[in-house]
Amino acid sequence: MSQEYTPPPVWTWDAPSGGAFANINRPIAGATHELELPVGEHPFQLYSLATPNGQKAGILFEELLAAGHAAAEYDAWTINIGEGQQFSSGFVAVNPNSKIPALLDRSGAQPIRVFESGAILLHLAEKFGAFIPTTPSGRAECLSWLFWQMGSAPFIGGGFGHFYAYAPIKIEYAINRYAMETKRLFDVADRRLAESRFLAGDDYSIADIATFTWLSGLYRGDAYGEARQFLSLQEYQHVGRWIAEIDARPAVKRGRLVNARNGLLERHSAADFDTLAQEAASVG
Amino acid sequence: MSQEYTPPPVWTWDAPSGGAFANINRPIAGATHELELPVGEHPFQLYSLATPNGQKAGILFEELLAAGHAAAEYDAWTINIGEGQQFSSGFVAVNPNSKIPALLDRSGAQPIRVFESGAILLHLAEKFGAFIPTTPSGRAECLSWLFWQMGSAPFIGGGFGHFYAYAPIKIEYAINRYAMETKRLFDVADRRLAESRFLAGDDYSIADIATFTWLSGLYRGDAYGEARQFLSLQEYQHVGRWIAEIDARPAVKRGRLVNARNGLLERHSAADFDTLAQEAASVG
Repeated sequence: MSQEYTPPPVWTWDAPSGGAFANINRPIAGATHELELPVGEHPFQLYSLATPNGQKAGILFEELLAAGHAAAEYDAWTINIGEGQQFSSGFVAVNPNSKIPALLDRSGAQPIRVFESGAILLHLAEKFGAFIPTTPSGRAECLSWLFWQMGSAPFIGGGFGHFYAYAPIKIEYAINRYAMETKRLFDVADRRLAESRFLAGDDYSIADIATFTWLSGLYRGDAYGEARQFLSLQEYQHVGRWIAEIDARPAVKRGRLVNARNGLLERHSAADFDTLAQEAASVG
Repeated sequence: MSQEYTPPPVWTWDAPSGGAFANINRPIAGATHELELPVGEHPFQLYSLATPNGQKAGILFEELLAAGHAAAEYDAWTINIGEGQQFSSGFVAVNPNSKIPALLDRSGAQPIRVFESGAILLHLAEKFGAFIPTTPSGRAECLSWLFWQMGSAPFIGGGFGHFYAYAPIKIEYAINRYAMETKRLFDVADRRLAESRFLAGDDYSIADIATFTWLSGLYRGDAYGEARQFLSLQEYQHVGRWIAEIDARPAVKRGRLVNARNGLLERHSAADFDTLAQEAASVG
């Protein structure tokens, strides 16, 4: 694995050499095996995992239910990406990009597939008229921050997280590149949250949900080893204030447990959280 | 610039060492200097540059005008990112993320800012009810592909393009990582376009505009040196068929000239394109 090198005229796919997650990275799309997805009884079928992108969907569903939108009932199924379940024929039919989360909306006459976490948030927010501002300027601000998050996360996760924590070698140039951009993104959010309670304005919205799952993991120190210290994240106090407020929401606490290894691998009803709490209490 | 190294406990910002564009990458957000943006007479003020993300907005404006939406008249102003114009106080007020394109929508009672190319496309498509499907399933499919493009481009541009063409050293691991992902993304699009005329279905939409500007540059061989050969992009024949169809649209031809060095640095009316064509003819 040399460092300074001359790329060949034509790239070829060699055996995996990419550290963690190397076995699930491929240059080819499409299904690797035939398998249908499970389908439950609720209008919405979520196929996900409690990564930052996956948590977004679980949190919004729990927020919608908490806000009284009973029609937002959902079944959540874990897709084990380490085992390649995102490459099943059933999953690829819902998301041809083979990434979690993916959603099947069976609330209408015909099932509708929705993929990409940002699209799922927007689809559900529009469907229930919730967690998205109704004024033209508020909506534009919310969409701007939502797309900002979607275009930024690859620099945080696929960039900084990969090269700082997951890559098989520590490459100084790449770590510097993505550390700088990750800090800049925290600073963009920090300045916005210095002037506004939430990203899109006074009200909590899908832009907050999308951004929260990414920034909070790093800020708390949950993600990427010593990244919190490495990036001096304590500097971003307005981000910290905003994370604390969102962390305290009961629906967020529940949403983070959906499709989580230490939470609910499957979620089919509100009672599942009670069962989990009882189990935790009996262990403690 | 060593390769295998141990990151320090706390990252610090040293002098720029990042190759092309190094001088415009900073770990800090916000304005570096006071300067207001110019404002023209039309309802929409676009601040952009003809990069793949910037071209999206110019193309959609030209498509809207070509489709008869006379209210979509716009002034386009070039933001020279190499000179740091995205860090002016005026630009930061419209886009706190300091990236092109940014839009000021002055068509209503109060000016509305919109930033991120995906948000600009969606804002305009919704405003004019054009280039976005009207059925629930069509809209969901369009949003899914639009967000897919927004979440994917950082792997193509900030990832593959950077490490293959712009970084000061060629790092084999990083080039392999992003070459693989760029090929996978082309394959995702290729398989979709094998079954569907456009990404969201039978009709050309903002999902196509967003994806076209990125894939076409690499596919034609315009972007990143020998990337077309390196990535064997001729394999993706359905992408090629779709690029040829979109390339042929007159509005796309005009849109690609907006805020381009070899096109219109400023665009204020349809006549500007005629002037450009006459100049080209007189030179030829």
